[in-house]
Amino acid sequence: MKIMEGNIASPLGFSADGLHAGFKKKKHDFGWIVSEVPASVAGVYTTNQVIAAPLLVTKESIQKNQQLQAVVVNSGVANSCTGLEGMEDAYKMQQWTADKLKIAPDLVALASTGVIGERLPMEALKTGLSKIVINGNADDFAQAILTTDTCTKTCVVTELFGQDVVTMAGVAKGSGMIHPNMATMLAFITCDANISSAALQQALSRNVETTFNQITVDGDTSTNDMVLVMANGCTQNEEILPDTEAFDRFADMLQFVMADLAKKIAKDGEGATKLIEARVLHAKDELTARMVAKSVVGSSLVKTAIFGEDPNWGRILAAIGYAGPRVSVANIDIAIEGLPVMKASSPVSFDSEEMSEVMTRDDLVIEIDLHDGEAEGRAWGCDLSYDYVKINALYRT
Amino acid sequence: MKIMEGNIASPLGFSADGLHAGFKKKKHDFGWIVSEVPASVAGVYTTNQVIAAPLLVTKESIQKNQQLQAVVVNSGVANSCTGLEGMEDAYKMQQWTADKLKIAPDLVALASTGVIGERLPMEALKTGLSKIVINGNADDFAQAILTTDTCTKTCVVTELFGQDVVTMAGVAKGSGMIHPNMATMLAFITCDANISSAALQQALSRNVETTFNQITVDGDTSTNDMVLVMANGCTQNEEILPDTEAFDRFADMLQFVMADLAKKIAKDGEGATKLIEARVLHAKDELTARMVAKSVVGSSLVKTAIFGEDPNWGRILAAIGYAGPRVSVANIDIAIEGLPVMKASSPVSFDSEEMSEVMTRDDLVIEIDLHDGEAEGRAWGCDLSYDYVKINALYRT
Repeated sequence: MKIMEGNIASPLGFSADGLHAGFKKKKHDFGWIVSEVPASVAGVYTTNQVIAAPLLVTKESIQKNQQLQAVVVNSGVANSCTGLEGMEDAYKMQQWTADKLKIAPDLVALASTGVIGERLPMEALKTGLSKIVINGNADDFAQAILTTDTCTKTCVVTELFGQDVVTMAGVAKGSGMIHPNMATMLAFITCDANISSAALQQALSRNVETTFNQITVDGDTSTNDMVLVMANGCTQNEEILPDTEAFDRFADMLQFVMADLAKKIAKDGEGATKLIEARVLHAKDELTARMVAKSVVGSSLVKTAIFGEDPNWGRILAAIGYAGPRVSVANIDIAIEGLPVMKASSPVSFDSEEMSEVMTRDDLVIEIDLHDGEAEGRAWGCDLSYDYVKINALYRT
Repeated sequence: MKIMEGNIASPLGFSADGLHAGFKKKKHDFGWIVSEVPASVAGVYTTNQVIAAPLLVTKESIQKNQQLQAVVVNSGVANSCTGLEGMEDAYKMQQWTADKLKIAPDLVALASTGVIGERLPMEALKTGLSKIVINGNADDFAQAILTTDTCTKTCVVTELFGQDVVTMAGVAKGSGMIHPNMATMLAFITCDANISSAALQQALSRNVETTFNQITVDGDTSTNDMVLVMANGCTQNEEILPDTEAFDRFADMLQFVMADLAKKIAKDGEGATKLIEARVLHAKDELTARMVAKSVVGSSLVKTAIFGEDPNWGRILAAIGYAGPRVSVANIDIAIEGLPVMKASSPVSFDSEEMSEVMTRDDLVIEIDLHDGEAEGRAWGCDLSYDYVKINALYRT
């Protein structure tokens, strides 16, 4: 597998565009991805019971068709918690996009992100659709889906399948309302491989638990989270079938892209100054490892301590203790960036100068050894800063 | 029932004291409550698997004895996550206090609160025990148990049982690491009623789910949480027996004290500027009502919105949607301080001037009607401010 420069339109047969349409004051806020031909599709959606209108419409269309040719996205307004009117607006967004592309509405997926509880400004949608083009500037798409994100999040990889180079690209937005029991942000992945929707869904579902579901910014699960993967077959490679070596390599490729985007989302969490990775070793099973890791990166007290560059091992141990799964609480080792702070659940002395240096780093790994089995798990989060509060206290105004 | 001025030593036969011993730099950090005679006792403890040494020692003693005569508390250092040495320190704290009072060690409960992961300074403990007195200034006890709290939390009530006036008093500390699956703070309740430990435990357990378990400050469950109730019988009233009218009145009295302390803890959450109460109406059962209420007051996004005085109904609906229990997501009404913001899960227009006024209030009630049954539930929390981050980023240094 090779990591490449590129964008969401790097795989064969895809194009994308993004621009300012008026959902936001100034920045890019509208974009699409279009495939030359209908593509296989797989999706995962928010586990929040309150599901935004664009997701409901998208799920329905994908279930009906098992294919997708375009994704249209706006940022600034989420069209969530908007009742029946919101559903009507979403159906219009789908229909108008289909009209412009001259394809069936069911081949169009929708995503909206931004303020919830407010109607979609349909004039901005009209403006956007009048300006957007096929074969536009695909880098602009990654801009168009952002809300409080401070940077675009893209990952492009290639892999040989027989003689054929398969390219896979992903873009994501995250920042706030990030606490998955599923996706909890938007991610779109394009690929030119020849693979069925069913096989694609299998590869996606396999990887969600260890990637997007293991990041947390603020513990809030959004109503609009969605991961969509499209594979249009334009590489014309031999079909990748489940239970084959090729499928495993394809799933690993997808895992790499998903994990890379997940970490980029965590690192760019609202107000974040540091990426925190919790690595749990020797857990009795993988679920325990993942739950413990996620509890640690999700703790407000751990997050604020790390913002304050304080190696507060007590808060880490406390977060392990309330994570849920049974652990041997008297036999836990904790290290921060390789420096031990607890052995067998007792504090150990460390060089405080060395620790001070470690705590200033932008990426911190907290390693937790549970001495209870062979399973491992990871989770990613960010520190909790003044800016998180600022961003969310002032977001609507 | 009458609400009184008073302190933890207002019930007959109790005394208390508090002073500066050296666990903290300057403020009161050491105190005790002593009963003239061994008292009936009931307790609830943290659900965190990592349990601090003083709690382990206290639980063990109470289980053995079913009686208690004294509670000794220090603030500043929590003696949590301190391994075997921490257990030895706790046993010494218990023994030394018993020696001073000339009672059996098992009649002494311990509580420690403050920084976790650090050893108890035993010199400070010696200093404290050399200075503390019986019949000291009981108001000082409420000071001595505080950490980042900005005010003491006390509640005193009296009630007639036959000809006898029973007095009940409670003090609590909270502020951070407040997210109960149990107590998640310290609360001590004294009472001069004649009631068995078993009956007292029944009354306490009945009320915990609707009071201390329904508050949240930051989602972190502490390792040191404990609620202890002592009833020494000094009123010499007829014994209050379970399944009687007197027992119900006693339990209601206890519920009042617990709810009052719980709200005071939520309102004084770290960095809080506002108390948020979520009232859920017409839920299908009480657990649903309580879980939905707690999800709303626990949402970082709701908390920051309210800090920003923004009536962000979308975030409230989203928090209902991920609370856990199934709800009819299309049929929810939400009002803030009586002003409707959503009807049947759709936004409703409101007078924005009136709303602006409402959002400036110090105490905000969010009313949520699920239109799904007859059950009700409440939860209390606070907004999330810059100061929460500041307090927790800098707490140890």
